[in-house]
Amino acid sequence: MYTEKDIEHKMSRSVEQLANPNSYNLVCHEHRMGEPLPSIEKLGKIVGLVRELLFPGYFGNTSLRSNTIGHYVGVNIDELFELLSEQILAGLCFTCENPEEVDMQERQKAAQGIASDFISFLPEIRRLLITDVEAAYLGDPAANSRSEVIFCYPTIRAIINHRVAHQLLKLDVPLIPRIISEMGHSETGIDINPGAMIGESFTIDHGTGVVIGSTCIIGNNVKLYQGVTLGAKSFPLDKDGNPIKGTPRHPIVEDNVIIYAQATILGRIRIGKNSVIGGNVWVTNSLPPNSKVIQFKAKGVDFYDGGGI
Amino acid sequence: MYTEKDIEHKMSRSVEQLANPNSYNLVCHEHRMGEPLPSIEKLGKIVGLVRELLFPGYFGNTSLRSNTIGHYVGVNIDELFELLSEQILAGLCFTCENPEEVDMQERQKAAQGIASDFISFLPEIRRLLITDVEAAYLGDPAANSRSEVIFCYPTIRAIINHRVAHQLLKLDVPLIPRIISEMGHSETGIDINPGAMIGESFTIDHGTGVVIGSTCIIGNNVKLYQGVTLGAKSFPLDKDGNPIKGTPRHPIVEDNVIIYAQATILGRIRIGKNSVIGGNVWVTNSLPPNSKVIQFKAKGVDFYDGGGI
Amino acid sequence: MYTEKDIEHKMSRSVEQLANPNSYNLVCHEHRMGEPLPSIEKLGKIVGLVRELLFPGYFGNTSLRSNTIGHYVGVNIDELFELLSEQILAGLCFTCENPEEVDMQERQKAAQGIASDFISFLPEIRRLLITDVEAAYLGDPAANSRSEVIFCYPTIRAIINHRVAHQLLKLDVPLIPRIISEMGHSETGIDINPGAMIGESFTIDHGTGVVIGSTCIIGNNVKLYQGVTLGAKSFPLDKDGNPIKGTPRHPIVEDNVIIYAQATILGRIRIGKNSVIGGNVWVTNSLPPNSKVIQFKAKGVDFYDGGGI
Amino acid sequence: MYTEKDIEHKMSRSVEQLANPNSYNLVCHEHRMGEPLPSIEKLGKIVGLVRELLFPGYFGNTSLRSNTIGHYVGVNIDELFELLSEQILAGLCFTCENPEEVDMQERQKAAQGIASDFISFLPEIRRLLITDVEAAYLGDPAANSRSEVIFCYPTIRAIINHRVAHQLLKLDVPLIPRIISEMGHSETGIDINPGAMIGESFTIDHGTGVVIGSTCIIGNNVKLYQGVTLGAKSFPLDKDGNPIKGTPRHPIVEDNVIIYAQATILGRIRIGKNSVIGGNVWVTNSLPPNSKVIQFKAKGVDFYDGGGI
Amino acid sequence: MYTEKDIEHKMSRSVEQLANPNSYNLVCHEHRMGEPLPSIEKLGKIVGLVRELLFPGYFGNTSLRSNTIGHYVGVNIDELFELLSEQILAGLCFTCENPEEVDMQERQKAAQGIASDFISFLPEIRRLLITDVEAAYLGDPAANSRSEVIFCYPTIRAIINHRVAHQLLKLDVPLIPRIISEMGHSETGIDINPGAMIGESFTIDHGTGVVIGSTCIIGNNVKLYQGVTLGAKSFPLDKDGNPIKGTPRHPIVEDNVIIYAQATILGRIRIGKNSVIGGNVWVTNSLPPNSKVIQFKAKGVDFYDGGGI
Amino acid sequence: MYTEKDIEHKMSRSVEQLANPNSYNLVCHEHRMGEPLPSIEKLGKIVGLVRELLFPGYFGNTSLRSNTIGHYVGVNIDELFELLSEQILAGLCFTCENPEEVDMQERQKAAQGIASDFISFLPEIRRLLITDVEAAYLGDPAANSRSEVIFCYPTIRAIINHRVAHQLLKLDVPLIPRIISEMGHSETGIDINPGAMIGESFTIDHGTGVVIGSTCIIGNNVKLYQGVTLGAKSFPLDKDGNPIKGTPRHPIVEDNVIIYAQATILGRIRIGKNSVIGGNVWVTNSLPPNSKVIQFKAKGVDFYDGGGI
Repeated sequence: MYTEKDIEHKMSRSVEQLANPNSYNLVCHEHRMGEPLPSIEKLGKIVGLVRELLFPGYFGNTSLRSNTIGHYVGVNIDELFELLSEQILAGLCFTCENPEEVDMQERQKAAQGIASDFISFLPEIRRLLITDVEAAYLGDPAANSRSEVIFCYPTIRAIINHRVAHQLLKLDVPLIPRIISEMGHSETGIDINPGAMIGESFTIDHGTGVVIGSTCIIGNNVKLYQGVTLGAKSFPLDKDGNPIKGTPRHPIVEDNVIIYAQATILGRIRIGKNSVIGGNVWVTNSLPPNSKVIQFKAKGVDFYDGGGI
Repeated sequence: MYTEKDIEHKMSRSVEQLANPNSYNLVCHEHRMGEPLPSIEKLGKIVGLVRELLFPGYFGNTSLRSNTIGHYVGVNIDELFELLSEQILAGLCFTCENPEEVDMQERQKAAQGIASDFISFLPEIRRLLITDVEAAYLGDPAANSRSEVIFCYPTIRAIINHRVAHQLLKLDVPLIPRIISEMGHSETGIDINPGAMIGESFTIDHGTGVVIGSTCIIGNNVKLYQGVTLGAKSFPLDKDGNPIKGTPRHPIVEDNVIIYAQATILGRIRIGKNSVIGGNVWVTNSLPPNSKVIQFKAKGVDFYDGGGI
Repeated sequence: MYTEKDIEHKMSRSVEQLANPNSYNLVCHEHRMGEPLPSIEKLGKIVGLVRELLFPGYFGNTSLRSNTIGHYVGVNIDELFELLSEQILAGLCFTCENPEEVDMQERQKAAQGIASDFISFLPEIRRLLITDVEAAYLGDPAANSRSEVIFCYPTIRAIINHRVAHQLLKLDVPLIPRIISEMGHSETGIDINPGAMIGESFTIDHGTGVVIGSTCIIGNNVKLYQGVTLGAKSFPLDKDGNPIKGTPRHPIVEDNVIIYAQATILGRIRIGKNSVIGGNVWVTNSLPPNSKVIQFKAKGVDFYDGGGI
Repeated sequence: MYTEKDIEHKMSRSVEQLANPNSYNLVCHEHRMGEPLPSIEKLGKIVGLVRELLFPGYFGNTSLRSNTIGHYVGVNIDELFELLSEQILAGLCFTCENPEEVDMQERQKAAQGIASDFISFLPEIRRLLITDVEAAYLGDPAANSRSEVIFCYPTIRAIINHRVAHQLLKLDVPLIPRIISEMGHSETGIDINPGAMIGESFTIDHGTGVVIGSTCIIGNNVKLYQGVTLGAKSFPLDKDGNPIKGTPRHPIVEDNVIIYAQATILGRIRIGKNSVIGGNVWVTNSLPPNSKVIQFKAKGVDFYDGGGI
Repeated sequence: MYTEKDIEHKMSRSVEQLANPNSYNLVCHEHRMGEPLPSIEKLGKIVGLVRELLFPGYFGNTSLRSNTIGHYVGVNIDELFELLSEQILAGLCFTCENPEEVDMQERQKAAQGIASDFISFLPEIRRLLITDVEAAYLGDPAANSRSEVIFCYPTIRAIINHRVAHQLLKLDVPLIPRIISEMGHSETGIDINPGAMIGESFTIDHGTGVVIGSTCIIGNNVKLYQGVTLGAKSFPLDKDGNPIKGTPRHPIVEDNVIIYAQATILGRIRIGKNSVIGGNVWVTNSLPPNSKVIQFKAKGVDFYDGGGI
Repeated sequence: MYTEKDIEHKMSRSVEQLANPNSYNLVCHEHRMGEPLPSIEKLGKIVGLVRELLFPGYFGNTSLRSNTIGHYVGVNIDELFELLSEQILAGLCFTCENPEEVDMQERQKAAQGIASDFISFLPEIRRLLITDVEAAYLGDPAANSRSEVIFCYPTIRAIINHRVAHQLLKLDVPLIPRIISEMGHSETGIDINPGAMIGESFTIDHGTGVVIGSTCIIGNNVKLYQGVTLGAKSFPLDKDGNPIKGTPRHPIVEDNVIIYAQATILGRIRIGKNSVIGGNVWVTNSLPPNSKVIQFKAKGVDFYDGGGI
């Protein structure tokens, strides 16, 4: 038990230490006055607006009637443009190495240009997502309707975030795509790196624990189950022993492949089209088209009687 | 970099395309004036009210004293009735195929009737949940108190949502039960389809990655660990190659079974009572009562020295 | 369909049953007037404040400039102290067995003393967390910057919550640490019991499904991948068949160990330093330093052609 | 000082008394299930939407650019329609004397029809309000711009609310118009009864304390100052001694009249066009056109020296 | 235009000066740790709860049906008790001259006792207010229903706040009553000091500008119009020239008196019962019962033609 | 009653008309992309921050202890600077006549410079306000403490807003000062134009209805009562018949003057020091120092018996 004075002393000392630049400047950036900061709250609103734009009537407040839908879309696009321009600018500023040499006016215009480019891809993103909804609906006997899929299947939320993040990454936006991906990861347990290239009619059943690495290439009509990893087997180190960034190191999965629960596919290998990978298997070599891979049938059939485990 | 005119042009074109019914009418419903919509926000409030009603003092603002608890329960039931009636109605409207033939007044009354039926099951749902709390507390050496279990064990949140969703499904409410289940899935990583029938004293330790399919039947006193799948092995396709919905295809797990982490149990098989399934095993055949199944002991004992993996 | 009277009757009966102490007093505490309650909302604010204090500019509204950072830290510490004192007090009250014998004034001062002790550890917690950020950044070729790691890597959120919860546990705060841990679990799918002792430069890649038990001891520079379990193999039961609480039953993992995805390490075993545990393996015995353990290479290479799986 | 028991007793007794219908049923209506209630919060939103629709860029979030303004207007009209239909319905229900004889479906449609009628008057309301802005701007040497007038002159807020309430009253909406007027009164200190008929180019300077009665008729181009009352001199009583409602009893003020601060004009008199009424005067008889009325010059010139007052 | 350095310098200097105790300690209290502060936000909630309790169905969310009203009342009383106890305590602490000698535990209990006393007066306060509603309804030909009076007449809001504040003052609560009164003043323009004693069936028409002083005594069935002042004519000074507090110095208004708009009644005089005071008059002497006082008829009848005024 | 089609038609037509630039461009500005807009919500926050900075412990969340007050002040100043810079910029943009010729970067810096200048005046503003608090406390026998004055006297809120607005006006900020003044007017019924120059120790009792014009000059130690007008008697018109802006036209009130309720002082006259102006009087000529002016004693003493009034 402490006196009020002791308490104040301990608190003051912590304030002093935590405010000492030496204790934070390895990781924290000085914030330059007047520059926007990446904001998880605003990125959440951006994701919400995009979901509302793509699937009106499911997310947000849009009332979908054919004679008014245009107004809702127009307002949402306008708000999206404003928020997204600001967050793209925030991403550019946050990762900028020599801020003093930058013309802010130019950069702001660049951010607006990128935001408008992104917005012009939204119709194509909707087209892709509708193929994903269809794949989820047709592929799951427990799905009662496409509405149910859109309202609540985690695969849809994860793939919306992914297709958005992937497009932003292709437009060279730093930092922001990865934050958007991780929001989807936190919400669904599905971890798709924004770098992954994913074709049409993609679906993941249940989804918790799925990992899709940044250099994955996935064809059309691919279906994954929960716990599947499409990961790297190893990665080359530089002379300081740190990983070399950017090398292709994750699988290529061709069209019409199904990969069952908890399977682990590692390395820059190619899973040929129409292949089926059984649950829980571990694949580190390329497979020809039409392969079927299953576990040793034996696994898990040992009976015995007695003893705790 | 674009001129302001270019930007406006791109945005206008996107508005036009996204507001074009052809681009959304495969998946989105025209919203009929005056009908409520399923709302994730309101369903979140419903789940919050139910949790507060069932475990007063843990969730929400109820102040639990014996002389005032009745007032809090009364107000919460009243609010629950109103919100739930509306959301049940929203579910009925959203999935209705021929809305012009429906008498809204009748349907509204039907929704209120269902809501009141659901409310009359709440005491029984509490009774079941208290057995679940007890099972979690007694079965986990890391649990310090029943309070800790209720406040923070993900199994409790998932099973509350499940027992609520399952009851609503039994009352033939469309769409809503699955949304409620997925809210629990997003919060806990535990994915229980509302169709699953689960007995008393059910608990899941840690829970992330657990999947319990829609036609599962689980007895009393069953315990699962993280990553357990009770899934379908395969499902029959109809003549168009689409899965046939509704067939029993998930396991039956009898009383007093324990299934350890990452085990995968697939197909309409029966795990006999008092059985213990070891971690990481893969079971696709029925097991008699009192079975004990473990992995090949050998797994993972290969030592070697050198090379990256 | 029911009459309004039927509906009212059903609701009244539920109110009566749910307000009947017999139906809840097995699990719910009578709330003593004037005592604070543990509040998930307030604990969420506490976690938010701590994150903002430790990584200013990433979380919360702190504007980080060297001449003003001290003010933000000062205000956040002040608010943290107030909220945390109250929640520590709530934890003490909630778990108190003989409340009528307690001097509330004394207890409130004790809670304030603990809160100030916790605050005095914050600089050390930041120091540790910076080593974790560095480990995540250097260890992941997909990480573009330390900023990206702090903004969105789930390992950082989970380990912040853990280091906070662990410190509170060491200060003998009941209930609260576990709630904070489970908040991190819900957000990231990484389940670390507050009791686990974890060294510097700790990182988890992807993370979903990781479980770290309450008596684990983890050295410096350890890296885990998604789905790794550091669990108990079994636990002794007391004479009533209930688990005995508190026994050391989880692994000791020494410095510089890497454990790949989905590996399961069970029991009070020791994984010697510099060891590498391959993905998906199952380890229940101690391993000497520099061990390398991998799966049977054979696993999952069975090809066959035909049949559904 | 009381024991906890005393306190609980006193509170229980108050609950009992306040919940006793005899204590409230003189003034409070039983709320019929499923009927909306007039809501001050929703009426506040309605006023906000109308202000935003009429003066985009001043109130609310509308971003006014010629190529996007239509979308904002469209969405705001849609939301206004929904909220207003509900509140008109609430007004109709709240004042209904024989609710059991009403077909709710019909009444809901009637409310929607009225709401749409109101919306079709909005362009005319804007036209009138622009004349009011012009009058305020031109008539006040302290007004720097029309923008300043719209942003902050209380006369504008009061007259918006009045023109809205008056239109609703003409559409026979009960209760709601008066609530909207009183919102303006609370905000500005200007009390205009919704029944008052007010011409174009109307302005009130400062405004606090102005009262305009329900049967007033005010021409074009009239200007009032703070504290002016256009009230009733007396009103006839019925045989029970209660005021007879609805009789014309407030002044008619013709075009181009100016009435200075604190003047009091009472009764069904006519102030002829182009008249000027001096501050603080008291007028209870009709005045011909072009009248000028001032106080006795003498008032308030008594000097004396000494004594408290 | 300044450099960033200049700006920072100016801001730092202001921080320093504003944080210097000499600049604030004349008026601001050091806040003792752990003591609650008077909070305008919480007092706003208290007023909202009281209004909801007294007129269920008009304010707040109470759904008024005879079989559920008790629950709403019970919960609202419980919340009111908690908030009010805290704010009474805050008032006691804020005005305490020698805080170090106070036993906080005792004081907290005292605050709770006062709060419960206040709550036990609520039924009587409702009874009085219903007479006020009736007076407003019967006395105003523009009032269409009692509902309209409760929903929107400023007199009702002002008199609710007054009757609450007056009761708290009688219970010797410092500071809080005056804050509650001023909330009503800000909302309605009616300024009633909490000390004023006001009988049954009291009403104020329009209300803006009414002032009722702290030592006023008002009988039953009194009606005021806008702008009426019941004030002090002068007040005795002490030897330092400061006003002596607490002396009776405002009017006594007996039963059945009507006072018309802008009339000014000053000093400790008595307006005899059944009197009528005309608008705009100035009264500083007592009047016998049944008096009728009007302005000089002459006032404001000067016509002239020409000149600006 | 209308068909759904009629309703849609009416709504579409209103959308079209309200979105037609001809219907709004007389008063509404095209909003240029990327420019901030004046925001009543943000100006409300600014006023809140200033009140919290000036009277810590009364407004906002500042916890006032001598060892932490500096942190709160620092954070609040920082937030004030950011919000105020933006709103000053918004004011500059909104009133700009030739926006295309403006360098936004420059203008933003100018806005920041002005904001910092304003902040450097805050200590002086506090000093003045403390004299106002003292004047209110000493001058009102109903004031129980300085705390009561700060917490709830409307004069304090009005004069805070005035001193802030006046300072911003002196710094040549357009639009914003008037909005801030009107916020105070709406809250208190006291209308002080930001142009008015007011000395130390200024107080207004009750306040509702007070009007102080833009060219008023008020000395030290002046006290007003409710309803006092310091207005213009007339103002010169230009050749188009519009008022000429900016001419001195309001009274000069010298030190130590008291003006009682409802008095009206009009024109560029001088009220000499130490004068006392009685209630309800009408003054349009200058008065020498030490004047005492009262109403004809006769006023309002006409007794008569009978007739309605």
